[in-house]
Parts: sequence; structure tokens; C-alpha cells
Amino acid sequence: MKPIDLLAAASSIEALWSPRVAARINDTFVKLARIRGEFVWHAHEAEDEMFLVLSGRLCIKFRDGDAWLEPGQALAIPRGVEHCPYAPEEVCILLVEPATTVNTGDAQGDGRTQDGPVWL
Amino acid sequence: MKPIDLLAAASSIEALWSPRVAARINDTFVKLARIRGEFVWHAHEAEDEMFLVLSGRLCIKFRDGDAWLEPGQALAIPRGVEHCPYAPEEVCILLVEPATTVNTGDAQGDGRTQDGPVWL
Repeated sequence: MKPIDLLAAASSIEALWSPRVAARINDTFVKLARIRGEFVWHAHEAEDEMFLVLSGRLCIKFRDGDAWLEPGQALAIPRGVEHCPYAPEEVCILLVEPATTVNTGDAQGDGRTQDGPVWL
Repeated sequence: MKPIDLLAAASSIEALWSPRVAARINDTFVKLARIRGEFVWHAHEAEDEMFLVLSGRLCIKFRDGDAWLEPGQALAIPRGVEHCPYAPEEVCILLVEPATTVNTGDAQGDGRTQDGPVWL
């Protein structure tokens, strides 16, 4: 078993907004992603989700205000809460979410929905 | 919702080897811990577990060799695999594991087993 350098692995993902599974912990995926720009507003009906910032500054917009995350900070978003990730500059993140989670949640159909999990 | 500074939160945990739940993601806990010294050899029969190092250098001993993790590195340990975390100097870690996970796994009874989850 070989440790993963999380930032190096996330940085090397070619496509933006395309989370890659780094580890499966029972029914939960730990994913890495490289993002820039604004995503889509969505919620996950049955899944909580944690964002952990590896590099850059991430804004997570909520209907009642924004949360800004610096490297080394994390935020768990309870199921059902509408959110929209926004990265003015490139950001590398780690996600912890159930394996059933669809990246665009209830906002599918805009072409940004990922077809099933993709491993690193 | 307020972001957690993971290293600051882990550093502030008074007791060593006493993971604190920082977030619940469905049936999975994200925990923080401050550790130093050697733990006990154990395995988790039904639970995978991920270690992510926030500060310091962590050794995870396996029966067939050691893995060393630097800050920003992570390692997922599949269920059933015997391991023994060892931190020559203080290390702060983040853990991702099923909510059912007992810290000492199958090696209960040495006084280091935690009674149920404790939140940050």
C-alpha cells in the first residue's frame, strides 16, 4: 500500500469538475477534483458531502450566504442543502461523499453530470 | 455553516489517541486526532479506514513492512488488514471511517478502546 500525495494527484487530473475516486471506504468515496469557475446550483437529496480544500480558495455559495474555504479547511454540507461551488482561481479539493452521489445532484441535464465513478 | 480549520481543530484535542468526530457524512465519520507514540496492532473486520496526515510524519506498520505518510498524504487501509499506527513525534491526522468503527478494532481490552463516538 502506497500513500497518495493528495495535492499532486488532484493537480494532475486533466479535466476540470471531474472528480476522481482516490479511495473507497465501505460505501463512501474519497474523491479528488480540480475545479475553476462556477458549477451549478444543486442539492443531494439523500447524501451529505464534505469539501476539503487542498489548494486555492473555494467559495461555496448557499442561498443564505457564501462560505469561503482556505487550504486545510473543510465544510460538510448536509443533504438537501442547495449549494454552488465557485472557484475564482483554480482550486484542488478532496470530497468525502456516499458512493451513490451524483456530482450535479438534483440539477442533472446540463451536460456536467458525470456518468458513474471514475477512479484516479 | 462554518468551515473547520482541520489542523487547528486537531491540535486542540487534549487527549492523545482520542479521535473526535468533525463531520458525519451519512454512515461515515470524518474524525480528527492527535497522536504520539505507538498504538496497538489491530484490524477492523468489516471497515475500511483512511488516514490523512495534517502535520508531522506518521508511520503505519503492516505485517509486511511500514508505510510513512507526510503531511498532505493519505492511505486507505482495507478491512481485515492488520496495522499499527506509530508516531515518533506528535502527528495530527484526519480519519475517514464507517461510524461503526472502533478505534482498537479487534484488539479491544487494553484500556485504549474508545467508548462510542465523541464529537469535537
